[in-house]
Amino acid sequence: MRARVVTFGEMLLRLTSPDHERLLQSARFDAVFGGAEANVAVQLAQWGIHARYVSVAPEGNPLAAAARSELRRFGVDVSCLVEGPGRFGLYFMERGTDARPSRVVYDRRGSAASLAGPGSVDWGRAFDGAEWFHTTGITPAISRSACELTVEAVEAARDRGVTVSFDLNYRRGLWDWGRPATDVLAEFIEMTDVLIASEAHLRMVLGSEDPAGGRTGDPGRVEALMGAALSRYPNLRTVALTVRDGSSWSARLADVETFHVTTRYDVSRPVDPIGAGDAFAAGMIYGIHALEGPTEAVEFAAAAGCLKHSIPGDFCRSTVDDVTAVLEGARGVDR
Amino acid sequence: MRARVVTFGEMLLRLTSPDHERLLQSARFDAVFGGAEANVAVQLAQWGIHARYVSVAPEGNPLAAAARSELRRFGVDVSCLVEGPGRFGLYFMERGTDARPSRVVYDRRGSAASLAGPGSVDWGRAFDGAEWFHTTGITPAISRSACELTVEAVEAARDRGVTVSFDLNYRRGLWDWGRPATDVLAEFIEMTDVLIASEAHLRMVLGSEDPAGGRTGDPGRVEALMGAALSRYPNLRTVALTVRDGSSWSARLADVETFHVTTRYDVSRPVDPIGAGDAFAAGMIYGIHALEGPTEAVEFAAAAGCLKHSIPGDFCRSTVDDVTAVLEGARGVDR
Amino acid sequence: MRARVVTFGEMLLRLTSPDHERLLQSARFDAVFGGAEANVAVQLAQWGIHARYVSVAPEGNPLAAAARSELRRFGVDVSCLVEGPGRFGLYFMERGTDARPSRVVYDRRGSAASLAGPGSVDWGRAFDGAEWFHTTGITPAISRSACELTVEAVEAARDRGVTVSFDLNYRRGLWDWGRPATDVLAEFIEMTDVLIASEAHLRMVLGSEDPAGGRTGDPGRVEALMGAALSRYPNLRTVALTVRDGSSWSARLADVETFHVTTRYDVSRPVDPIGAGDAFAAGMIYGIHALEGPTEAVEFAAAAGCLKHSIPGDFCRSTVDDVTAVLEGARGVDR
Amino acid sequence: MRARVVTFGEMLLRLTSPDHERLLQSARFDAVFGGAEANVAVQLAQWGIHARYVSVAPEGNPLAAAARSELRRFGVDVSCLVEGPGRFGLYFMERGTDARPSRVVYDRRGSAASLAGPGSVDWGRAFDGAEWFHTTGITPAISRSACELTVEAVEAARDRGVTVSFDLNYRRGLWDWGRPATDVLAEFIEMTDVLIASEAHLRMVLGSEDPAGGRTGDPGRVEALMGAALSRYPNLRTVALTVRDGSSWSARLADVETFHVTTRYDVSRPVDPIGAGDAFAAGMIYGIHALEGPTEAVEFAAAAGCLKHSIPGDFCRSTVDDVTAVLEGARGVDR
Amino acid sequence: MRARVVTFGEMLLRLTSPDHERLLQSARFDAVFGGAEANVAVQLAQWGIHARYVSVAPEGNPLAAAARSELRRFGVDVSCLVEGPGRFGLYFMERGTDARPSRVVYDRRGSAASLAGPGSVDWGRAFDGAEWFHTTGITPAISRSACELTVEAVEAARDRGVTVSFDLNYRRGLWDWGRPATDVLAEFIEMTDVLIASEAHLRMVLGSEDPAGGRTGDPGRVEALMGAALSRYPNLRTVALTVRDGSSWSARLADVETFHVTTRYDVSRPVDPIGAGDAFAAGMIYGIHALEGPTEAVEFAAAAGCLKHSIPGDFCRSTVDDVTAVLEGARGVDR
Amino acid sequence: MRARVVTFGEMLLRLTSPDHERLLQSARFDAVFGGAEANVAVQLAQWGIHARYVSVAPEGNPLAAAARSELRRFGVDVSCLVEGPGRFGLYFMERGTDARPSRVVYDRRGSAASLAGPGSVDWGRAFDGAEWFHTTGITPAISRSACELTVEAVEAARDRGVTVSFDLNYRRGLWDWGRPATDVLAEFIEMTDVLIASEAHLRMVLGSEDPAGGRTGDPGRVEALMGAALSRYPNLRTVALTVRDGSSWSARLADVETFHVTTRYDVSRPVDPIGAGDAFAAGMIYGIHALEGPTEAVEFAAAAGCLKHSIPGDFCRSTVDDVTAVLEGARGVDR
Repeated sequence: MRARVVTFGEMLLRLTSPDHERLLQSARFDAVFGGAEANVAVQLAQWGIHARYVSVAPEGNPLAAAARSELRRFGVDVSCLVEGPGRFGLYFMERGTDARPSRVVYDRRGSAASLAGPGSVDWGRAFDGAEWFHTTGITPAISRSACELTVEAVEAARDRGVTVSFDLNYRRGLWDWGRPATDVLAEFIEMTDVLIASEAHLRMVLGSEDPAGGRTGDPGRVEALMGAALSRYPNLRTVALTVRDGSSWSARLADVETFHVTTRYDVSRPVDPIGAGDAFAAGMIYGIHALEGPTEAVEFAAAAGCLKHSIPGDFCRSTVDDVTAVLEGARGVDR
Repeated sequence: MRARVVTFGEMLLRLTSPDHERLLQSARFDAVFGGAEANVAVQLAQWGIHARYVSVAPEGNPLAAAARSELRRFGVDVSCLVEGPGRFGLYFMERGTDARPSRVVYDRRGSAASLAGPGSVDWGRAFDGAEWFHTTGITPAISRSACELTVEAVEAARDRGVTVSFDLNYRRGLWDWGRPATDVLAEFIEMTDVLIASEAHLRMVLGSEDPAGGRTGDPGRVEALMGAALSRYPNLRTVALTVRDGSSWSARLADVETFHVTTRYDVSRPVDPIGAGDAFAAGMIYGIHALEGPTEAVEFAAAAGCLKHSIPGDFCRSTVDDVTAVLEGARGVDR
Repeated sequence: MRARVVTFGEMLLRLTSPDHERLLQSARFDAVFGGAEANVAVQLAQWGIHARYVSVAPEGNPLAAAARSELRRFGVDVSCLVEGPGRFGLYFMERGTDARPSRVVYDRRGSAASLAGPGSVDWGRAFDGAEWFHTTGITPAISRSACELTVEAVEAARDRGVTVSFDLNYRRGLWDWGRPATDVLAEFIEMTDVLIASEAHLRMVLGSEDPAGGRTGDPGRVEALMGAALSRYPNLRTVALTVRDGSSWSARLADVETFHVTTRYDVSRPVDPIGAGDAFAAGMIYGIHALEGPTEAVEFAAAAGCLKHSIPGDFCRSTVDDVTAVLEGARGVDR
Repeated sequence: MRARVVTFGEMLLRLTSPDHERLLQSARFDAVFGGAEANVAVQLAQWGIHARYVSVAPEGNPLAAAARSELRRFGVDVSCLVEGPGRFGLYFMERGTDARPSRVVYDRRGSAASLAGPGSVDWGRAFDGAEWFHTTGITPAISRSACELTVEAVEAARDRGVTVSFDLNYRRGLWDWGRPATDVLAEFIEMTDVLIASEAHLRMVLGSEDPAGGRTGDPGRVEALMGAALSRYPNLRTVALTVRDGSSWSARLADVETFHVTTRYDVSRPVDPIGAGDAFAAGMIYGIHALEGPTEAVEFAAAAGCLKHSIPGDFCRSTVDDVTAVLEGARGVDR
Repeated sequence: MRARVVTFGEMLLRLTSPDHERLLQSARFDAVFGGAEANVAVQLAQWGIHARYVSVAPEGNPLAAAARSELRRFGVDVSCLVEGPGRFGLYFMERGTDARPSRVVYDRRGSAASLAGPGSVDWGRAFDGAEWFHTTGITPAISRSACELTVEAVEAARDRGVTVSFDLNYRRGLWDWGRPATDVLAEFIEMTDVLIASEAHLRMVLGSEDPAGGRTGDPGRVEALMGAALSRYPNLRTVALTVRDGSSWSARLADVETFHVTTRYDVSRPVDPIGAGDAFAAGMIYGIHALEGPTEAVEFAAAAGCLKHSIPGDFCRSTVDDVTAVLEGARGVDR
Repeated sequence: MRARVVTFGEMLLRLTSPDHERLLQSARFDAVFGGAEANVAVQLAQWGIHARYVSVAPEGNPLAAAARSELRRFGVDVSCLVEGPGRFGLYFMERGTDARPSRVVYDRRGSAASLAGPGSVDWGRAFDGAEWFHTTGITPAISRSACELTVEAVEAARDRGVTVSFDLNYRRGLWDWGRPATDVLAEFIEMTDVLIASEAHLRMVLGSEDPAGGRTGDPGRVEALMGAALSRYPNLRTVALTVRDGSSWSARLADVETFHVTTRYDVSRPVDPIGAGDAFAAGMIYGIHALEGPTEAVEFAAAAGCLKHSIPGDFCRSTVDDVTAVLEGARGVDR
């Protein structure tokens, strides 16, 4: 169980207005680090998986230094963080509730990661000892060069026989550098072994070929969608989807042999849903390495994603025991 | 869309114990300005409507100065704030949840607004350029002289051909200066063009003549109630009611031609419901000016009131786009 | 209505990570005093019952001094707090939500109360003027000597004709000094007049003799359980159970003549459920003294326990009027 | 050392903007109870003196209830708190530093204490067992009736042979009910045994007869001032003055036999100077009862007043040991 | 006294770690708006001067919208805020004490103001009705185009006969777009009527021609420095310098007729020194318009700058009365 | 510059009441990790020195897990943290100011470190690759077995030729397990190469042999004291003392060739002086490894200790550049 997992992406500082206030309603921000790929590495490290996080951060920048320390706190391997010119990316957030959606305002222009491009990272060093590579559809969205760097990363992984997982993570607010998101994301799927996505994002990428009607979360419709992905992209070994339906959260896994629908969790009083998908992705990677089979993996991943809803910040701060308690239906006060 | 709306009432400082604590459980108060009529002006100004707030505030008082600045922050026209002797009114609040109601403790005795009376305000200046006047049943409750000043305001508006909207806003804890609330409120309805109320308050004022049985929120019963109001007070052009039923929030509009029931919103995880009725009132005024018809107006108003439940403080801090997102059923995280 | 109630147990300082954070996620703890038996005394004193709290606290310790002041703030009689060697007991807490249980980590080893034993307290002075004695299954759990001291307390009460109420309060994380919890708790039930418990804890103590199947909260099954307790322990005059079923909270009372099921309350948005059982216990003691009969008592107690869910801290800070408002179904904003 | 001290005055809620912000710069207030005479009682009770606080507070008011609990927390005897009509008095505060003075804005109009008058308090009960009575020049300032009630209190004390201490406590912002402050305060001095004041206030009351030139804190000038007071008011047994000179704090005591100048303390980094004079007054009362002579008393009092500068809130939270440590010049970290 | 003052520059959001923590030591930032030229406008508006703030802010950006509201709160005329492409500029700050300097980390790259250039602003509209124009050496530092836009602004002012004041405000961390700061700043001085600076910055710009030795704050040396400026730049009517010497703060004014050294203030316990120079600049502009002569102006300005040290945030929140109290040496607690 | 430094001691959680409040005045604690030897390791790691921290922490304890993560955040080598039975040690703190000393209340009884004894640590692994060992007089104070374990550590270091530095760190509140502190500390000095202490502690240990009169900080007296230490303990290569004199902070170094008095720093506005001695110790170790000679080392160390006074928490969070800025006299705002 000493799988060496590498994740690659951009780390961000999230600035959230307190409680559910509008931005700058009070003169204060809660500040946490995040970024989908860092979130995955942080969670894996806490579960005892050797996780290395690769990124390009601004040189001599105190935010970047603090980010590095924060990763180290969780035991993430930060030996392959690269420095480059540019800013440290930020995002501002307001938390919604009921009918009011949470709002994210990105401030990533000119960030070191968006200015980086092919050649910025020494992939030989980054993948030294690695068995698994995870990245997402966010970095390809931030700039053409960052997209090319991500392609380079995936190709370098595949050249070394490293398994590739890819989380679609479509971000409407980011894609503006020229190519349509769906085209780019589809190209990444073609290089992926394990595809992770929310139902809505996968449906968007598969586009007009949506093979079934019915409402979100409809089991038959989701199974058809996942089947379509598996047939269109024969390189895919596994597709794992998260499904939100009102206040419930669950997941589906499909591979050649299995279609599994997980336990459905009530997440009606979320503390912080940001990063739930990343906790799910980490759960899939952990489960595939450490648990008995794909069914156990996706159940573990769904429980981890559920748990993340209750934990403030981008990072899922959980142990394997914490996830197991969710799987076992623990409730109330544990004393 | 440059309607000049005037609102009149008393601005208050709300002191809330943090989280859901009892008063002074911690040695801290969260402090926000409010007051029904200021809430309406603040919301209208953010939606691009020229809104002037008229009030009587204590002279040389730093709370009054801060209140004026706070209104100006939202673009409210404060040129007709009048100074007079007295205190700045306060209210203390504890937030409840589930079976525990929120508690309001007023501390308004001796306030400048309650000491003011007819002649305190130059209505000619106040209504200069005005097309609409909005006030509520709160100011008439705080003292006999404040009630008389409010009557003077409504009459001055009518004399100038300014449309009058009135929100019943019955406050049990305030009415003690002599005349029964129902009598006074009924007299105001007689001078009103657009009546805004919660179902319960309208039922209370119409009193024994309640024309229908059935439980709160029952559509037929509400329609009958609104019909009774329209027939008893032929001056009324429009009646708009907000209806709470458990954790749902919706509204009804009735005029000579229309009876419309709005979308029903889940507000089961409210952040701060204070001011939801005022956001609804502002939505009605905005909608009548800027949208196609009464149906669109009341739908917009209901969505605004729903949105206010998610926003801390008395003021609804929203843009037209924010309300539109509620109308369109936005959810989750907008990124 | 000047019943003199004595409660005995250990007072603790609870250190809670803010919001729903994991322990030390932020460099801050919210700190409140608690302890089941202190919670009962604090609530009774606020309802006008003379309540004396007996405990053994570390001498010359500033936390103990602060605890004593905090009790005095609520009007609790602290004249029989005894000093002894040892630490002041602590517990750390993380608050959960939805599928994540709250977590309690005790740090009570070497506390003054756990080092105390028979002879530590002058029971003659402690029970002077007393009519009722309340203690719980927590103190017997912390050490053999503390268990023996609790037995001494109950026997001293019975010798003086003082009514004994006992709350099972099983704490899995504490019982490790040698004897099984179920054996010890059963011995306490044999000395009890009024038994208070959660359904689950009573079922655990009655063990294999569980006389009925069915799921938690099933009325018939609960009635059978309570009946079994009454027949096995003929000393019991009254059994009062709290029942949680999903997000609902209610209670059952059984005595020779009555089996009563209370109103069922929704507690789906709890602020702090810790101490709800203690508020229920206080409500039973209050109700038996001040209300008409057992049915009224358990209804009052259930409402008090419901109310506690909405109040931060271990202590239920409520007046009789506050509980009455819950009984009457008050909602929304009381203004 | 079981002297029964009675103090009388108005309790207030202080609302302070956080840090050194202007009022409502942030939407928050820190809230503490205070009032000169309550401050004295609270400090005496912590030093083991039986202290009873007499006041008139608004009936059924949650702030008054919280104030009563807060006093009880410190062991103050609240059995003679009287209820009457009116509000609970408030004051708002901004904290200054360096060249910016702190600012107090009173909001006491219509308070229960200012509406009270002769006959509001049962002085027989209030002075039952009392040996010492302490009041200040604040209550006479708030209204004519409150002034008359204070006169009644002092006369009732003298009739019973109770020693009277009076702290001038001139508050420029309060005196507006008709009579000049200097006249009224002079009349109180005529009924006083132990006069406590700041140098500046005593100089103001003695007025044109200021017997010496020189700058503030000049020893000879202060001695002459105190001598003038003793000769003009032969009823005075003791005069104790606090002297601020830049960032230093010290005191002077004069009686028939003694003129003592205390240690001079540096208070250049004050946390909260409000209540320092009250801690000094309490120190005088404590010292006269418990220490060897007037010199020891005023040294203890000066150290207590110095200590108060370091403690947030109106109340001085200190033990006798804490004051002794100041007297002994403790510094740094006590570990 | 209705002088129309226009200021031009970039508004920034300052993110400060709480207390004196290092950046991200806690997961929180205090957030306030600032920017030298906005600070001047905000203070002038509070003193009753009509102040218009001209800037280029990112379009559709919620931070820009909040900044605009914040200016409006103080009564600043925001009618000439222009929108353009780019980010909203930020700066991060750690507060030092004693031997640890405060640290500012700019994050302004790609800001709307730095991307703006000649033609971005309609100066005809901006200077409509203006009598005075104030800008500083910060905007010329952020980019070549912003420098050119500032030159355009100054020329436009001069063309319209508007008096120009210029604050050197050298920021070492910003100047990197090509030309040396000293060259550029010297060119601005040539277009200036009233030059404002700290002693150190003026010395730096005058360079090798420093006409006198001696240590910082040495009166003769400062007078010589100011004399040198007046002779080298005959366009200068007035030079006003702030001088820090250890923990003291004072100012000097020189014009053809006057050399005045102000009162020296102790600022040894500063709450927030950021913006003190801007408060000084505002004080000069106010004083020249509203007070008797240059001596009174610079004394007022020095007192305003002193006062700013005690006020949290970039903005000086003060009234004319507040400054007057400093001039009159007010101390302690004003009650 | 890749010296491998090992430090050994007990890590503690410090719980501080906010601002300068008395313990539990507010229901909140600020919580930071500390402990003299951890503080040294944390600072060294930030300066690029490989630092390994050895301790015995309670097994399966969430506070211990958080402590480990916190060390890892700074890059400390935590591979030799040992688990054992017991609690995690705490200390409570109140911050003083001016005449009020800060107060520390230890709660370490039963801690894992105090229960540990010889054999608890594998010193072979701990010292693998080590060149320097640092420990202090605190661990020998907490229990006989911990003292014996510390002796074992020092002997193991000496056996391996590892240089030993020892910081006296006398803690009056801890020494109660039997032997007098002075005897035990003297035995440790006999095994020490580099002795670090405050002037007062060294004077206490050298006892009656104090070779010189004069007041604290008197240069001649301090030089004589250090000389006496060097002659009495010929094993000592270097003695480095910190000297506090009122609000100033400086240091002295003595070895065979040198007696150096460092720059004297003003620390009159300390943010948190806890850990200043540890920052000084770390500075000595860093300086001896990385700087030119003993004079440079002690100047660096004194500046680091000065800097620590400005940084909240036990840990000194500084870079080499930060210390250099202090050495160079940086002031004000660095922008």
